[in-house]
Amino acid sequence: MSDVTTTDLYEVTMALSYAREGMDRAATFSLFVRKLPRSRGFLVSAGLEPVLDHLTGFRVTAADVRRFAAALHRDPADLEPLRGTAFRGEVRAVPEGRVVHAGEPLLEVTAPLPQAQLVETFLLNQVSHQTTVASKAARCVLAAGGHPVVDFSLRRTHGPYAGFQAARAGGLVGFAGTSNVAAATRLGMAASGTMAHSYVQAFPDEETAFRAFARAHPGPVTFLVDTYDTAAGVATAARVLRDLARGPGCGIRLDSGDLAAEARRARAILDAAGLPEVRIVVSGGLDESGVAALVRAGAPIDVYAVGTRVGTSADAPYLDSAYKLVEYDGRPVMKLSSAKVTAPGRKQVFRRPGGPDVIALWDEPCPEGAEPLLRTVMRDGRRIGPPDDLAAAHARFVEDVSALPPAARGIDDPEPVVPEVSPRLAELTARVRDRLAAGAAWQRGG
Amino acid sequence: MSDVTTTDLYEVTMALSYAREGMDRAATFSLFVRKLPRSRGFLVSAGLEPVLDHLTGFRVTAADVRRFAAALHRDPADLEPLRGTAFRGEVRAVPEGRVVHAGEPLLEVTAPLPQAQLVETFLLNQVSHQTTVASKAARCVLAAGGHPVVDFSLRRTHGPYAGFQAARAGGLVGFAGTSNVAAATRLGMAASGTMAHSYVQAFPDEETAFRAFARAHPGPVTFLVDTYDTAAGVATAARVLRDLARGPGCGIRLDSGDLAAEARRARAILDAAGLPEVRIVVSGGLDESGVAALVRAGAPIDVYAVGTRVGTSADAPYLDSAYKLVEYDGRPVMKLSSAKVTAPGRKQVFRRPGGPDVIALWDEPCPEGAEPLLRTVMRDGRRIGPPDDLAAAHARFVEDVSALPPAARGIDDPEPVVPEVSPRLAELTARVRDRLAAGAAWQRGG
Repeated sequence: MSDVTTTDLYEVTMALSYAREGMDRAATFSLFVRKLPRSRGFLVSAGLEPVLDHLTGFRVTAADVRRFAAALHRDPADLEPLRGTAFRGEVRAVPEGRVVHAGEPLLEVTAPLPQAQLVETFLLNQVSHQTTVASKAARCVLAAGGHPVVDFSLRRTHGPYAGFQAARAGGLVGFAGTSNVAAATRLGMAASGTMAHSYVQAFPDEETAFRAFARAHPGPVTFLVDTYDTAAGVATAARVLRDLARGPGCGIRLDSGDLAAEARRARAILDAAGLPEVRIVVSGGLDESGVAALVRAGAPIDVYAVGTRVGTSADAPYLDSAYKLVEYDGRPVMKLSSAKVTAPGRKQVFRRPGGPDVIALWDEPCPEGAEPLLRTVMRDGRRIGPPDDLAAAHARFVEDVSALPPAARGIDDPEPVVPEVSPRLAELTARVRDRLAAGAAWQRGG
Repeated sequence: MSDVTTTDLYEVTMALSYAREGMDRAATFSLFVRKLPRSRGFLVSAGLEPVLDHLTGFRVTAADVRRFAAALHRDPADLEPLRGTAFRGEVRAVPEGRVVHAGEPLLEVTAPLPQAQLVETFLLNQVSHQTTVASKAARCVLAAGGHPVVDFSLRRTHGPYAGFQAARAGGLVGFAGTSNVAAATRLGMAASGTMAHSYVQAFPDEETAFRAFARAHPGPVTFLVDTYDTAAGVATAARVLRDLARGPGCGIRLDSGDLAAEARRARAILDAAGLPEVRIVVSGGLDESGVAALVRAGAPIDVYAVGTRVGTSADAPYLDSAYKLVEYDGRPVMKLSSAKVTAPGRKQVFRRPGGPDVIALWDEPCPEGAEPLLRTVMRDGRRIGPPDDLAAAHARFVEDVSALPPAARGIDDPEPVVPEVSPRLAELTARVRDRLAAGAAWQRGG
């Protein structure tokens, strides 16, 4: 599904024209997010690893050429100039897990123009989607204030691949586990989950169900207690756990109703039964807002399971991302029309302790005490260094997020960080705009 | 990525317990949407074909057992009872493309309990996602009032698989094409797309860019005119098209600004240049609301390209879907807690001309003049009949949508259709609720 035909048709029409015109000089495209959704104070960089895998294997085969030709209703011979095109360029990128802001390049590709163009759609797709979901998941971790958060989203993500990426995004920002078996085992994350309402319903009554479950699972178990009457379900769970001497590591799960009130009632029942160590897990339509409200209410909840709303980033399911040509054959370029002006030139982002980031030209010197965010991760179409590690990405996230201003980390009405623009980049932007505006005026006969 | 480990862990823990308890009698699960999002008046059934493919190939291998064991920190020998489990059940489902409403089963699975349970996550994922996107896309077609709509969503869908499904959803509801080459060629849809702003920027000026593009593409071309100054871009496009005598089938694309005003201005320029046949394509953040506003404004637009907001169903990126056990071993079951009450028993939906649908028990006689929506599509784990066809699904959509009340088809504040419940189903629901409530009261010591 992710071969080179997983692309917008226009990448192919453009690449064909470039090939015909001999326009294969180096082009730099910059991938960035123009503006953050209202409910985001920062973004978490994600998607780079699958991008590098894709670029490493990118090669237009004869079969691809036939598909391109079919899509264009052309003779495959007409598309022949594209056959064999592989990605041989350079990628500079912000490593996964780092916090990024509006306007900052997450990734810059420098490659012969047709190559850099053909990979646009896939790169935008991966980085946009995964950064979207990682940024949503990050807010859940912040909202939970130290309590474990687990991912239950697979059933309603946009396909199984999106479910895998949602689990991975959770791992990036520090989720304690995921319900997704494929993701957990492939990523080395903890797998989480116990029983559904249907399980309880399949038995004559709750107690029979809980006892059967415990027979099959000699380790810690978590009983779902709200299939019929929640308080009765908690009492039954307590009775079974006590009878079997199975308290430590065990839990009950609440999936409906007023979760704060139900958790308090459940805690009281469990404590009265001499089971203070039995944990309370909650689920059911939660995202960072729901988690924050429960934490604020002081509800005695031990684990927060988030699902659909997080796996789909429901309040902001996409980012205003762009993959823009910023330089061709050494000439900085930009777009002028309407509000979508882009800054020209290859860039770097400098992160300064205690101050906002500076977006600069790529060859500007790094300010004293600052750190450049974009690293060269691919050269001549080959990865530099081994694949990145989820644990390393998580460590970057932890460090970056702790350095954010509290207002950017807020759950309600977060204030996004606004990066500065270096004087050299501002000057170049003004110069290119003037040049292009003069050209446009000339076109109009002005 | 979509093997049997693409599942929530709890399907595995439950199936293992069922196997241990010898609970392998027939269970029926019903997949339905509880409540429609505020901005939906109806849903379009989608996702069945990939579901049937998955069920056909479903088989727990030794490698899957090892993954399950790893996820559970158990010895693979403990999971041995699940090895070899294949899907051998029956599926009754609403064919793709049909209009459905809240509470109506889209699909019912009847199979030995462990089989029916193990497939839950994948089935919910597919049907929820694809029905979500098809229902959003359907509204775009209605909003466009007969003008062609094309899908440009691949760059920001939740991964490439979601991009493929978005293109397919468009095909289901009658989109004229998609930018997605893989989807277009695999599904037999028209591929659509021409050039990006970066293309224009890579040349010294717009006219040079347009002429180069026309050289590479001798057929109809569409020029993107808003890279610098939109009116000047339209004039340049007109000049190039006239010079090359390339009007018929050609177009210009507007991607920014006030699209209605820009389209009027562009139309005037093109008409004045003697190019009344050149089409105006618009794109840029459109969904059904944007399309409806442009149609209402009488903007001279020929083709509407929708993207991100439709491919992610941005205003309602998920459905409140459920996969609920409704019968086990001949015994109707339901859930009581909180607001999430479900109706017990295997069901059928009868569609009556001129009246709302009736949700009934599956063995009720079909009312005079009505049509049953659920068809048996799989028996003993094998498809009945050949795979469905996108064109046939589209034909079903066209017929069903034309029979909807106008208020359900509305773009602003649509009124969802509320199906009726048959007296026999209502009676069974009351009886099962009473039986369970008595059980719960007994559990509480009431």
